[in-house]
Order: sequence, then C-alpha cells, then structure tokens
Amino acid sequence: MLKLYYAPGTCALASHIALEEAGAEFDAVRIDFRRNEQRKPEYLAINPKGRVPCLVTEHGVLTETPALLVYIAQLFPAAHLAPLDDAFDFARVQAFNSYLCSTAHVAHSHRMRGYRWADDPAAIEEMQRKVPQSVGECFELIEREMLEGPWVMGKIYTICDPYLFTLAQFLEGDGIDPARFPKVLDFRNRMSARPAVKKALADELD
Amino acid sequence: MLKLYYAPGTCALASHIALEEAGAEFDAVRIDFRRNEQRKPEYLAINPKGRVPCLVTEHGVLTETPALLVYIAQLFPAAHLAPLDDAFDFARVQAFNSYLCSTAHVAHSHRMRGYRWADDPAAIEEMQRKVPQSVGECFELIEREMLEGPWVMGKIYTICDPYLFTLAQFLEGDGIDPARFPKVLDFRNRMSARPAVKKALADELD
Repeated sequence: MLKLYYAPGTCALASHIALEEAGAEFDAVRIDFRRNEQRKPEYLAINPKGRVPCLVTEHGVLTETPALLVYIAQLFPAAHLAPLDDAFDFARVQAFNSYLCSTAHVAHSHRMRGYRWADDPAAIEEMQRKVPQSVGECFELIEREMLEGPWVMGKIYTICDPYLFTLAQFLEGDGIDPARFPKVLDFRNRMSARPAVKKALADELD
Repeated sequence: MLKLYYAPGTCALASHIALEEAGAEFDAVRIDFRRNEQRKPEYLAINPKGRVPCLVTEHGVLTETPALLVYIAQLFPAAHLAPLDDAFDFARVQAFNSYLCSTAHVAHSHRMRGYRWADDPAAIEEMQRKVPQSVGECFELIEREMLEGPWVMGKIYTICDPYLFTLAQFLEGDGIDPARFPKVLDFRNRMSARPAVKKALADELD
C-alpha cells in the first residue's frame, strides 16, 4: 500500500489531496517538524532530503510534489487528474506546477526557511520582510495569466488544483490579503467544498 | 517550427541540448539579459514571466525547464530521452528535475538574483556569501544519492542529463571546486564530449 509522509502546513497537502481525489488506498504518516523528525536517521534513511512529501510505493521511494502529482495521476487514470494523452496540455500542467515549486513556493519559503540561503539574522529578517511582495507578485501572475477558472486549466480539474490550493492556504500567513486576488479566492472556496479536500485537511488536523 | 528563446549562461541550455539530442528542427532566439530584453514588452507578450527558457510551439507557448524537457522527450519519442512507458521510472526522472529547479537552481540564483527575495544590499551580499555552502550541499546530495552513473538515471541517457550538466556548469562561478564531486566532474566531462552538447554550447557562444 502507498504510504505518504507529510507534515501539516506544508506542500505535502497537495499530494495528500490528489491521493484522496484518486480514491487511493494509502497510509498518511505524519512527520513532526517541531520535534525535527525530518532530520532524524530513521526518516533520512527513507528520504535523504529530510523533507516532505515523500511517497513510498511498491517500486521504491519518490519525492518532490510535481513528480508525486503526475505519478498519482498515472497510477489512477480513471480519476482523470491530468491530460496524459496530450503532450502539449500535459506540458501546460507541468509548467504550472513547476512555476509553483520553483518560484511561488520558493518565495514563500523565505518567511520560515531563510536559513537555507543566509546565516545572518538581519538578512533572514530582511527576507521575511519582502515575502508579502515576492509572494504577492507570484499570485498577481497566477491571477492575471494562469488561473483560467473554474479550475487552473479551465473546465477540467487537474493536479494543478490541489497544488495551487495548498500554496493559496499560505497567503494570510505570508501577510497577504487574499481579497487582492478574487479569482484565487473564489478558487480556494471552490476547492474547500470538495470532499477530497475536506478529508485531507481533516486527516492533517487529527 | 519550434522556437526556443534562451539566454547564454542560463538554465535554457538544458532545453537547447535536449532539442539537439532529439534531432529537432528549431530556431534558437537569443534574449540579451544585459540589455534587459527579457523585461521588454515584445518579449513579455510572448512570455509574461520575463524569463527563459520559453518554447514556442504550433500549439502555443511553453515555459519552465522541467515541462519543456518532458515535452521535447514526448515530441521526439525516437530519441528515447525519457522512460515514458514506466510511471515509476518517469516519476524518478521528474523528481530529479524538480529537485534541480526548486532547490539546486534556487540555491544558485541567490548569487545573481538575490533581489528577488531581499532589497537591502547587505542582505543580498549575505545571500551571495552563502551560495558556495547551499549549492555545495545540493551537489553533495546529487553526488552521494542521485547521480547513478554514467548518466543520472544509470545506463540510459535521459532529460535529467542536460539539466544536471547545465547546473554543473555554474559550479566554478558559484565558488565551488568541482573536484569535490568526482562523479559530477566525470559526468560533466562525459557530457562535454557529446555532439549535441558541443553544438548547443557553440550556438550559444556565437
């Protein structure tokens, strides 16, 4: 059976939702970041990156949200979570998720994980100060150019949706009023009503 | 015909090499970052992100290196640049490329593009100071856990290879002695001997 390692409040939520959308049977295993479990030898033996998400499959271990999302879509084709038969549409899905992981999420990470890129506390504080602007610019682009509506790719729900929902959950914490982005806010509300999203969020709260 | 927008010394080289490996017919169009062409209205009309790479196809415009690499592999299946028929192997390829775009490249970007995440010159300088360490940690993980050899995924050359080669080209500029990573260095030399790599590098030098 699939096993998803996650921590609440992280991007692992995207894969968690996708597994629920796919109707997958899986175990969700919590890694407690407050107790630094992600850096303990037991976890590093599974995932040397010391991060979440991490998906243990019958073939081996997988990491990185964009990879997990496509894998889930391919493993459960009946759920139609990605346009797997059209190279261009698939590339658009991939481009969106790649933008989230390499630009939008990275901007957000400068609030809590600035120590990755600087040691001086003043520099880390300066990074935190800029987060509302840098994350805000990402969401301006998403609002204006990317989110077609009602779902990211238009009429069809895809693996882009749980990922955007996950990052959109961070907006208030990043000091951004989501009312600046009406399409994103509308999308977030629409996502919150989905049973799979409710289920994943409830699991992570337990 | 495909059109690749690139700038020399950027991660666009990965897609450039992949197109050459695939035997694709394409135009390579240079965007001059020194003249800030990536922020000019003509280019923003094509790619609102104002970055490279950007691939113009008959179906529309695509961005983001991991998306372009898979698209190129799918468009030219005879070149066998990705394990398209095995979901798990494909996910491993995706995970590797996702790590490069969201962690390794991001660490590198703090040397030249710190202004994305901070305004204070002292903070930007502090970010630059840490680049050898943060990029070095990424390459330690790649050397120890990821690069199977002779190619990233083992015996078979894939779209992971031009991407890793591209980031490995930045090591010296990031203040890192590549001799610390013998497998990466060996890989870089092996890549440099490939006709497609020579061709792409020569095109970008012209």
